[in-house]
Amino acid sequence: MARPLEYGEQVLLWEAKRGRTFSFVLREGDVFHSHRGSIPHGEIAGKPEGARVFSNTGTEFVVFRPRVGERMMKVRRRTQIVYPKDAGWLALALDLRPGMRVVEIGTGSGAFTILLAQLVGPEGRVYTFDRREDFLKNALENIARAGLSGRVEAGVLEAGEPFPVEGEVDAAFIDLPEPWLAVPPAYSVLAPGRPLAGIVPTAEQLKGFVAALEREGFVAVECIELLERKVLVREREGVRPFERMVGFTGYLVAARKALGKEVG
Amino acid sequence: MARPLEYGEQVLLWEAKRGRTFSFVLREGDVFHSHRGSIPHGEIAGKPEGARVFSNTGTEFVVFRPRVGERMMKVRRRTQIVYPKDAGWLALALDLRPGMRVVEIGTGSGAFTILLAQLVGPEGRVYTFDRREDFLKNALENIARAGLSGRVEAGVLEAGEPFPVEGEVDAAFIDLPEPWLAVPPAYSVLAPGRPLAGIVPTAEQLKGFVAALEREGFVAVECIELLERKVLVREREGVRPFERMVGFTGYLVAARKALGKEVG
Amino acid sequence: MARPLEYGEQVLLWEAKRGRTFSFVLREGDVFHSHRGSIPHGEIAGKPEGARVFSNTGTEFVVFRPRVGERMMKVRRRTQIVYPKDAGWLALALDLRPGMRVVEIGTGSGAFTILLAQLVGPEGRVYTFDRREDFLKNALENIARAGLSGRVEAGVLEAGEPFPVEGEVDAAFIDLPEPWLAVPPAYSVLAPGRPLAGIVPTAEQLKGFVAALEREGFVAVECIELLERKVLVREREGVRPFERMVGFTGYLVAARKALGKEVG
Amino acid sequence: MARPLEYGEQVLLWEAKRGRTFSFVLREGDVFHSHRGSIPHGEIAGKPEGARVFSNTGTEFVVFRPRVGERMMKVRRRTQIVYPKDAGWLALALDLRPGMRVVEIGTGSGAFTILLAQLVGPEGRVYTFDRREDFLKNALENIARAGLSGRVEAGVLEAGEPFPVEGEVDAAFIDLPEPWLAVPPAYSVLAPGRPLAGIVPTAEQLKGFVAALEREGFVAVECIELLERKVLVREREGVRPFERMVGFTGYLVAARKALGKEVG
Repeated sequence: MARPLEYGEQVLLWEAKRGRTFSFVLREGDVFHSHRGSIPHGEIAGKPEGARVFSNTGTEFVVFRPRVGERMMKVRRRTQIVYPKDAGWLALALDLRPGMRVVEIGTGSGAFTILLAQLVGPEGRVYTFDRREDFLKNALENIARAGLSGRVEAGVLEAGEPFPVEGEVDAAFIDLPEPWLAVPPAYSVLAPGRPLAGIVPTAEQLKGFVAALEREGFVAVECIELLERKVLVREREGVRPFERMVGFTGYLVAARKALGKEVG
Repeated sequence: MARPLEYGEQVLLWEAKRGRTFSFVLREGDVFHSHRGSIPHGEIAGKPEGARVFSNTGTEFVVFRPRVGERMMKVRRRTQIVYPKDAGWLALALDLRPGMRVVEIGTGSGAFTILLAQLVGPEGRVYTFDRREDFLKNALENIARAGLSGRVEAGVLEAGEPFPVEGEVDAAFIDLPEPWLAVPPAYSVLAPGRPLAGIVPTAEQLKGFVAALEREGFVAVECIELLERKVLVREREGVRPFERMVGFTGYLVAARKALGKEVG
Repeated sequence: MARPLEYGEQVLLWEAKRGRTFSFVLREGDVFHSHRGSIPHGEIAGKPEGARVFSNTGTEFVVFRPRVGERMMKVRRRTQIVYPKDAGWLALALDLRPGMRVVEIGTGSGAFTILLAQLVGPEGRVYTFDRREDFLKNALENIARAGLSGRVEAGVLEAGEPFPVEGEVDAAFIDLPEPWLAVPPAYSVLAPGRPLAGIVPTAEQLKGFVAALEREGFVAVECIELLERKVLVREREGVRPFERMVGFTGYLVAARKALGKEVG
Repeated sequence: MARPLEYGEQVLLWEAKRGRTFSFVLREGDVFHSHRGSIPHGEIAGKPEGARVFSNTGTEFVVFRPRVGERMMKVRRRTQIVYPKDAGWLALALDLRPGMRVVEIGTGSGAFTILLAQLVGPEGRVYTFDRREDFLKNALENIARAGLSGRVEAGVLEAGEPFPVEGEVDAAFIDLPEPWLAVPPAYSVLAPGRPLAGIVPTAEQLKGFVAALEREGFVAVECIELLERKVLVREREGVRPFERMVGFTGYLVAARKALGKEVG
């Protein structure tokens, strides 16, 4: 049985005509306002996902729970975020699955933390660290809005410090301006053979990151970038890519922890 | 404690010098053969992931459990497969998480089924259908090799037939030459508001798919394609994209089930 | 000896700090105005290309004659234009060279006509046609601003009509919503073996265009699209692609006129 | 009147069924051999471009003069060449036109020299230099095959040396592993305001090139790369990009010579 939308939950409104989306937490007595009119939260609470609602000016919306990528895009941003297109690739690179324990350094706004928490599930654990207490605070609010606080432990940490995590973790993710600093502590905490991944904005950082990985005993290093092209499909206008696109969001890196050093 | 590699498990050998990978199931008494010499399976069983092993001609390999993307790439192929780069995007589009019940139509070689099964976890369920019994048989062998048989139920089904699934599912995935045929049964079986996704190879199929989605009551339809560029990072040669790349693997589609029809 | 900039010429001002460009025709007594102050045309006339000039508020500019791509981008637009990135590819596809006679159908705003006229030179000839007299008028003004009127003959023509050109031409370019209509008259007017090229916005138009080419006796048909990525190179920030890019400007088509029909 | 193909000319054979192309110089008494049978050159000489010819095994070909891009692709290669897709962009960046005098450093195999020579025409001049005499010899043979020797002057030159060219040139092109070395001599020889362009393979070289340009007094520096995607258009299979593509051929750079140094 589909569970109705409840107060306290984050919802997504999709505007039928223009395809724009809006996201907020349902609060008793609150009202959603947009250029296309207003809707009291009370008209949304209790509805099932997929229901159509209308603003006081007659504009049609459909209500949803946000998917994880939408939760990521709708975080309150204090930093660059990991975009969903990159997050999907990284999820596979990190071999994410229910029950995993994952470490993340560079919490930022918590967008990628939300994906990690969703995919490791209630029995998994995400340990996330950032040097900026204010970033962490904002990120934890974003994670709470996504209803995932129970799976996430956060702490303040400088880039080169050892991760205060007990035992081994199943995957490590690095999103730092100086990713190489976090490579030795990530190696220490990772279970043998398990994956590390990261994202960096420039060719120079990519080079430094890869050099550190190879030096510290990681192998099977892969570097890629993803270009996402939206495609316009209209009965009359025909099929063609959009005229504008996001050109670059970062270089993605994946590697695996090997035991011992290369002989050859 | 890291669990050692065991007989019956699928392993991945990564060749240190050239970066090539090999995948097989560990069997007592078997021997791995390559152009770079041979290694008895008995030298791999019992080792931890990340261990270095050497062929009889001295070539160095590192042993791993394949990550989910590697399991996908190493399936025995009877059909085109969904590539990891696309699979990551689709995983987010389908809002995958532990415990979900997902329906897939167009099992093919089972590559994407493996990702679905990994992400829904032991408490989730993947219902997958194909019209070709021989494809299903091969796919189920691939899924078994990945150790995920317990979460997957498969059946023979023609494209337009209703899905023989009890109750509602949380997500639906379509990978068919005529995807529009599966849209009405997918609408019927999906919980309200929940996501549908699919992949198609041509502009014409994309157009037909989108038209069917809009006709049947899906909204928030998105169409994209992803370009993955490998980047070469070498101390001496410098940083630059690879000279060759995969140019196209399919158009990706995502949508959500709305209740009732658009008014406007 | 470098020729100084003269009244009546189109000039390009490049703003040193922000890299923005401005283009206009030098007129005695006129003044250039921008958010960064003003410069009397008289301070530019008589200067060599590459000279630095300053606005009354001290902003630094460098003056140039626009290159052909800049002339194309700075035309007064009444229609979509052919972008320089595509124009370069098309110039090679059409095998442009001094002295050639080229026919263009779909003058639009005359951007591509300017490139054609520059490359065929003073001994070449561009015959350009459009069904809209108002478009032609605007295009001819743009061509005049580029100083290329002497090489261009223009006329009003419906898409399917024969080209009123005497003798054979060396290349034909089609930029029409229904490009297939112009394929038979283009075949008639082209010298044997010589190239045709075109640009279309959608997959459906591409399909119709290619079908017409193959039906009418063109061979070696090629279809491509070009993605141009700007790369940011900064000493401090490092090297990386820009965050935004143009995602699509059109499908480009090239073909050659064969004699007689395919046998096989 | 279309001029028939003559002995001594380079021709292009396009194979009708498979779209493959072959290029050679027509010689009296010679025979073209391929996996699809043979054709005496005498059956081609005297035919117009666009004529259909058949091998002794019945395979259909169409004969053409190569377009400039095909001449570039068919050079005998001793080095990486500039690809047509990049060459088109560079032609516009260099503002090429009939009668221009252009300097090129890094002749390589002469592919780009061929384009330069075609576009400056019989009244223009291309001065091209390479440090390797053997490369120059091969390049000059390629240029001769294209029938363009009369417009090209070549010489041996080390990267940092002044260009032995009298007077000013209208454009300068650099294709060197250490492009920065050629920036000062290019600045010296260029007419004020006129364009320089170049191509480099790595992010590091790009950075060094741009730094040298800015240091020496060039402005309006642009860095881009082009991705060319072939599109498959088939009546039955539908429209979609090819599965494989060229991923990278180089970073392209364009700039203009300013007079004096930036004040700000």
